[in-house]
Amino acid sequence: MLHVLRLGHRIHRDERLTTHICLVARAFGADKAIITGNRSNSLIKSVDKIVDNWGGDFEIEYSDSWKKVISEYKDNGWIIVHLTMYGINIPDAIDDLRKEVSNGKNMLIVIGGAKVPSKMYDLANYNIAITNQPHSEVSSLAILLDRLLGGKELSKDFEKRFKNAKMKVIPSRKGKEVRKII
Amino acid sequence: MLHVLRLGHRIHRDERLTTHICLVARAFGADKAIITGNRSNSLIKSVDKIVDNWGGDFEIEYSDSWKKVISEYKDNGWIIVHLTMYGINIPDAIDDLRKEVSNGKNMLIVIGGAKVPSKMYDLANYNIAITNQPHSEVSSLAILLDRLLGGKELSKDFEKRFKNAKMKVIPSRKGKEVRKII
Repeated sequence: MLHVLRLGHRIHRDERLTTHICLVARAFGADKAIITGNRSNSLIKSVDKIVDNWGGDFEIEYSDSWKKVISEYKDNGWIIVHLTMYGINIPDAIDDLRKEVSNGKNMLIVIGGAKVPSKMYDLANYNIAITNQPHSEVSSLAILLDRLLGGKELSKDFEKRFKNAKMKVIPSRKGKEVRKII
Repeated sequence: MLHVLRLGHRIHRDERLTTHICLVARAFGADKAIITGNRSNSLIKSVDKIVDNWGGDFEIEYSDSWKKVISEYKDNGWIIVHLTMYGINIPDAIDDLRKEVSNGKNMLIVIGGAKVPSKMYDLANYNIAITNQPHSEVSSLAILLDRLLGGKELSKDFEKRFKNAKMKVIPSRKGKEVRKII
């Protein structure tokens, strides 16, 4: 199981980025996103609506304490992977991460918000960078999940994950084609 | 050469997403970003500042006409790759794209904004999806560039691209370490 924890969401300012994080989590194989910081019902609703339209079992929930989330996951034996540009670059860490997965470990991927408390770096089992250059938590999450799943989330087989979709894209060389499933 | 064209930037609403697009473009090996839509001097300034701090030759500029940009690039023999969830999924297109690159073609990667004009789908040489699920233009750009460069943008060698940096991350298992270069 792969879950994603978004730290310190801020209403308005982070609304679109956090939404994109949730959609990347879903499209690239995570099972759940947990948001901390400000509670945003509209965000949760909009992600739920996308899941409802495009299928699958992806869940989103809110917690008022990131520390509580992490300690619960740790108690349950989950591995905590914190994405930060200051961490170990992914090519130097991917073997260890894959080993954890093949040992049957579940993974909580933590994504920073405004200011990540320094405690987070200690609580994480792995502090991982996707390049040590500044870019985006959205792209970092996508590349991490892509590396963990070895690219299989891009395959047709992976699409089967998104059961009960009301809409499905028919890939097209020009233009848009969407099949509506009633 | 790889350039990125962001369509229809909207002041305020898109400020952070477009900034993240530019940073992904830079970190994952593109040479330039061109913004169309609303001109945002603050966005251009903030990307320029990051380039100044973290090094390299990445450029950002504004154009008031996306059609003009595309027709100029086409006239100069560039291949136009439009990222859209309605396009051909990347595993089914990557061989063709890599062939273009190994034939010495330059590539303009187009990323949609609010409403992508249907003309864009015709103007593109390739309409490419990064999965046919909804997620984010930020993650789509990262995965496309990652696929095009075969992951080499994650290597230490690639860091050499970022010459004249004033700041450099020293990858660290816990905490943050940044070397300031004076």
